[in-house]
Amino acid sequence: MKILVIGASGTIGKQIVSALTDKHEIIQANYNSGDVKIDISDTTSIQSMFDTVGMVDAIVCATGEVAFNVFSELSRDEWDLGINSRLMGQVNLSQIGNQYLNDGGSITLTSGIIADYPIAYGTSAATLNGAIEHFVKAVAVELPKSIRINVVSPTVVTESLDIYGDYFPGFNSISAKDVAQYYLRSVLGVETGQVFKAFAGN
Amino acid sequence: MKILVIGASGTIGKQIVSALTDKHEIIQANYNSGDVKIDISDTTSIQSMFDTVGMVDAIVCATGEVAFNVFSELSRDEWDLGINSRLMGQVNLSQIGNQYLNDGGSITLTSGIIADYPIAYGTSAATLNGAIEHFVKAVAVELPKSIRINVVSPTVVTESLDIYGDYFPGFNSISAKDVAQYYLRSVLGVETGQVFKAFAGN
Ligand SMILES: NC(=O)c1ccc[n+]([C@@H]2O[C@H](COP(=O)([O-])OP(=O)(O)OC[C@H]3O[C@@H](n4cnc5c(N)ncnc54)[C@H](OP(=O)(O)O)[C@@H]3O)[C@@H](O)[C@H]2O)c1
Ligand SMILES: NC(=O)c1ccc[n+]([C@@H]2O[C@H](COP(=O)([O-])OP(=O)(O)OC[C@H]3O[C@@H](n4cnc5c(N)ncnc54)[C@H](OP(=O)(O)O)[C@@H]3O)[C@@H](O)[C@H]2O)c1
Repeated sequence: MKILVIGASGTIGKQIVSALTDKHEIIQANYNSGDVKIDISDTTSIQSMFDTVGMVDAIVCATGEVAFNVFSELSRDEWDLGINSRLMGQVNLSQIGNQYLNDGGSITLTSGIIADYPIAYGTSAATLNGAIEHFVKAVAVELPKSIRINVVSPTVVTESLDIYGDYFPGFNSISAKDVAQYYLRSVLGVETGQVFKAFAGN
Repeated sequence: MKILVIGASGTIGKQIVSALTDKHEIIQANYNSGDVKIDISDTTSIQSMFDTVGMVDAIVCATGEVAFNVFSELSRDEWDLGINSRLMGQVNLSQIGNQYLNDGGSITLTSGIIADYPIAYGTSAATLNGAIEHFVKAVAVELPKSIRINVVSPTVVTESLDIYGDYFPGFNSISAKDVAQYYLRSVLGVETGQVFKAFAGN
């Protein structure tokens, strides 16, 4: 399979690449590096990436930004960071990208555990993670060419505890390698319209 | 109780007003009419409404627009209609409005059954209904002054079948009067962070 991994240089993305690279052709796309560069918050950049890459069998998106702040101070600019990246970045990637997928291809997006369990400063992330999870469930029924779409919702990643750990008191973390398996399940499996919750209890 | 009902002249809003009016003081806010006018997609208009209305005990939002189209043709302008009204309209109403709520007050927002069950042309509505449902669950834990927040998710309303019926084949409808009871449960009850699904099976 020819698999496009966006955010391939990231903590999670690196493990997705590493889990797939033996048996598949991986195209790595990052903001600053990779086989091709992309800014998912910019539709022109998405289109130009696909012009370069051409047809693929799977698109994996392991990126998407969102702002963290207390609700009373969340500005529209902060909301827009997530709206343009986490939400519309992944929506636009799906809308443009499905045209570059071969029959039976797949799209795998990323949300996060904050959709289900509130954390301090997490209102915008919860809202936009929830949005992308509902997007995936809805759009799964109308994608052409038997294309499947799923979203992986990781809990805090063990390798990221230095950065995010304080915001997830008492949450069990998951290794990036274990998170990567949920992306593999989406890419290589048969499910569609699913939220794969990469955390205990699911 | 002093209760602000936004979208009070609408199919659902009229029944909310009618169910509450005997025992409570209702302030009706609509786009074109009412005790006060408001455009929820415009924060200046939200602020100016609260400058006029002052402190209240409950805010009910029975309005919020969203675009309907097939996914492949949904434009960013169509997405933005819902982002600015259904999503950020209700988010901004909650952010500004909680400052005008008395202790123990409540906010009740509106989503819709499309969050859970796909219909044709419904991808943007599903996404943004889902967003507002996740918003309510997340923000409930950080609102000040013991303020509660819930969202009502109606199935298609019987009185609206002429307009929307064809998009909901085989869905049971609910009368606007019955939908109004879920808003009353949110305003007069004790629950918070809940999605009240105004449809059978819930
Ligand atoms: N890590 C966690 O604990 C955790 C938990 C739940 C959810 N998530 C979500 O999972 C995703 C990946 O997380 P991560 O920790 O692996 O991220 P990360 O280590 O910060 O890596 C981010 C990756 O995304 C790329 N990127 C940054 N901005 C981009 C843009 N505008 N367009 C396209 N690519 C862009 C980066 O490229 P460059 O290297 O070139 O900048 C990098 O490859 C994020 O959406 C994150 O919110 C993470
Ligand atoms: N009816 C259904 O079957 C159904 C099902 C599920 C969900 N919903 C949702 O429930 C809500 C109410 O539905 P409905 O059928 O009762 O609506 P409706 O009959 O069309 O009435 C809309 C109400 O919202 C007001 N309004 C319109 N634009 C506004 C704006 N920008 N800012 C503030 N107020 C505005 C209108 O005021 P004016 O009269 O002055 O224009 C009117 O009071 C909507 O969000 C709808 O999507 C409806």
